[in-house]
This record gives sequence, structure tokens and C-alpha cells, in this order.
Amino acid sequence: MGGVPVSKTEAARRLAALGLDDEATSALLAHFADAEQRGKQGHGYSRIPWLEQQPFDRHARPTKTHSVPGFERWDACGALGYLALQAICEDVIEHPPAATCVVAASHCFPTGALGYWVRMLAERAGLVAVLTATSPARLAHPDGGPSLTGTNPLAIAIPASDGPSVVVDVSMGAVTYGAVLAGLASAEELVPFGGASAHKAFALAVGLELLVGALAGPEHGAVLLVAQPGFDPVPGLRERAAGLRLPGDS
Amino acid sequence: MGGVPVSKTEAARRLAALGLDDEATSALLAHFADAEQRGKQGHGYSRIPWLEQQPFDRHARPTKTHSVPGFERWDACGALGYLALQAICEDVIEHPPAATCVVAASHCFPTGALGYWVRMLAERAGLVAVLTATSPARLAHPDGGPSLTGTNPLAIAIPASDGPSVVVDVSMGAVTYGAVLAGLASAEELVPFGGASAHKAFALAVGLELLVGALAGPEHGAVLLVAQPGFDPVPGLRERAAGLRLPGDS
Repeated sequence: MGGVPVSKTEAARRLAALGLDDEATSALLAHFADAEQRGKQGHGYSRIPWLEQQPFDRHARPTKTHSVPGFERWDACGALGYLALQAICEDVIEHPPAATCVVAASHCFPTGALGYWVRMLAERAGLVAVLTATSPARLAHPDGGPSLTGTNPLAIAIPASDGPSVVVDVSMGAVTYGAVLAGLASAEELVPFGGASAHKAFALAVGLELLVGALAGPEHGAVLLVAQPGFDPVPGLRERAAGLRLPGDS
Repeated sequence: MGGVPVSKTEAARRLAALGLDDEATSALLAHFADAEQRGKQGHGYSRIPWLEQQPFDRHARPTKTHSVPGFERWDACGALGYLALQAICEDVIEHPPAATCVVAASHCFPTGALGYWVRMLAERAGLVAVLTATSPARLAHPDGGPSLTGTNPLAIAIPASDGPSVVVDVSMGAVTYGAVLAGLASAEELVPFGGASAHKAFALAVGLELLVGALAGPEHGAVLLVAQPGFDPVPGLRERAAGLRLPGDS
């Protein structure tokens, strides 16, 4: 097992060696490079040594298993969660809903930096997008006991008529597991965020865990909502914010 | 203006005097009494003196203005937000979606304790429900400046095959405005929750503010997602929690 790649060139070489096809390799590289560029090292090249150790089916294809107006089920079918979300986003961008679509993605892990996917939907298709995903249980109840939920981020992107989208991506953990993997935080710091209000972040983690569980099943999964915006609220908020940094701004 | 009603009887009498019809009066009383019973005084009878001072149209009727499979628009049309959400929930319970439905409710304020509505949908119709709503700007950016977002709660209810639903209802404020109204907190305490992680709660408030703004328009509104559960994740979580209190438990 090598260390964390120190350059995009090394990352590309190591990803190519995983034995995925070119499209999948490019999708992973784009995701990790974007995370690095945004300073989210925990979602960046630090995942490559970890991926190199994972048993996964190089030839698996995420599949849309059910589709009715406004709702779709997908199954990653053994593919990496990143590649399932890439396939789902590409499909939504190619066939955007008239109004809204909810996507439940089963066996979908790992899903990476959720902000990346909702930003893609907002920037490339002008869609409002809300995404959450589950992951191994790492957050315990503030009163103690075993880990009960993943860090279960909630990501929300809203496109803007006059500039960049606002992209929220909030993990319910005080630190990310990626930060632990990257050696930037200790495992003990991985608790619900909020200090004296940690019960609130824990409650959100529970709600999102059960939302994904109820729609996508008992294995890790994701739930995505995309919607055509009827209004354009970002310019007004940016004006009121008068230069303050909004979520997702670089 | 009277003080806060001290009993359900007084609350009923004061609500009846507002001049609404019996059904609306009962809906408000049920909402406020439930909040009192759950210890959420800020969403309970303390709202009655405030309502008594509000100009609102006693005869306004919330209206479904648009409906396609999986998506509906409603407009409160001058009715109290409580009564718009009551009408929306009754309609969803009577005509549950085959898979999912997203509802954008415009001019919908005040909306009360959002957990009440999602619990109603879970308990009466067995639906998964996710609800958020906007309200007057009371949360400032953690770096300072003017108030930019409402406290914008996120509520999630997941029904269970073997017992009560799990009901999450998390405001992004460290305290609720209701608590300020009820004299239980000062206005200065109404900041994004989380202390050193307040940027996370603020980001969620921004994302939810813009989500509602993009789907329901510039006035206060609400966005509801209801879904038929495909799985039953609550019993397993309760087992793993081994008696720890989960969100919404009384």
C-alpha cells in the first residue's frame, strides 16, 4: 500500500492501476482533484490508498432498477458509490425532471464529498439538488453507547442566475472520517458537532440515517432530490450578505 | 392583549374568539396543545397572544395551485401557515403518493412545530416525511453582519412497524424564536447552534432558506417531501440504541 499521492499525476497513475475503465477512472480523478482543490483533503487523494485496499467489482455497473414520474430507484450493483452517483447525476443531467425527482440509491458507498454532486447538478443542469448518504456508524448518542449513525452529510445546491451556485455540504460529525483517514483529526473527535447542542446534530444524523434506510434499504445508500427552481433566491441573499462568504464559495 | 393562556380551556376560548371556523380553530388548538404536552412551550399557547395581534384573513383558504405526478404547489392564499400545512397534510393523507411527492407551499407562515406535521404524516399514513420552512431572518453569519436566514427547522419522520415513529425536528438556532417569545431565552441567544461549529448550522440554515426560496418563492414558505417507505429501519435502530432516547420520543 502506497502513501497518499502527492500530485494529480501520481493520483491519475494510481487510479488507472485500479483496473477500472477510463470513464470511471476519470470520474474518480475529477472527484478527488476537486476535493483537493477545495481544501477537503479528507475527500481527496487520501482516499486512494484506502481504495487500493478495497475489494470491489471493477466491472460492476450502477443500474436504474425502477422509474416512475418523480421517483427512481438505483442500485450501485457492486460499483463504487462514487461511480453510482456519477451515473445518477449524468442521467439526471441528460433527462432532467419536468418538476422534481427523488432518487433512492441502494448499496451506494462510498459517496465522497456530497457537495461535489449537488454542485454538478446545479452548475451543469440548473437544478436545485439535495443529497444525503449513509456510511459506517461512527457517531454515538450524546448520552453515550455504541456508534449508531454515519456522519450522514446533507448537501444542498441552489443555482444562481448571476454567478456561482450556493453549495452547502454539512457532515453531522464534528470532524469528518476523511479527516481522520488523512491524519488531520483523531477518532475520538468524531462525535456529533455542536458541543452543548450535539443532540441537534445527532438528531439530524438519525433522521437522515433513517430516511436513507427507509428509501434505499439497510445497506449504505443515498437519497437525492432534484427540482427545477421556480425562483432565483441566490442573488438577493448575496446582496444582503454584502460580501460575507456563503457556503460553497471558494 | 391577554397573557399566555394557562389551560387548554382558556386556549380554546381565546382561539374560538379569533373568528376562524370550527375546523381551523380545532386544528390550531390541537397543534398548540400537542406542543405544550411535549414541553415545547415556545410553539404552544404562547403563540395565542401573538396570533391575536396578527392581521390575517379569517376566511382565506389554502389552495393547491399546481399538481403533476410527484410534485404539487400550494399557496396559503392569506391563511395562517398552520392551516395551510394542516390542509396539505390532510390532502396527502387522503391521497398518498404511489412513491413520492414534493410539495412547495408559498406564502406559508407561521408553520409552528414542524415535527407535528411530519409525525402526523408518519402516524396517520405510514409515510416518510421531510419538512422545512422559512421564517423571518433571525440568524446572522457567524462572522457577523445582518440576520440573513430564519431558524429554518428541518423535520424528518420515519414510521415504524412496531411502535412510535422517530421524529426529528431541529431548528438551526441555538434557541427557538418561540423560546424568546415565551421569555425562556433572550434575543441575543438566537444565533446558529453549535458554538465553534456554528458555521455548520448557519450553512444548513442558508441551504434550507434557499431551497424554500427556489421552490416556493421569496415570501416565507415550506417544502415537504413525502415518500412511501420501502424498508423499515426504525426497529433495528431502536435495538442498537438499547433504550437510549431517540428523537421525538416522549
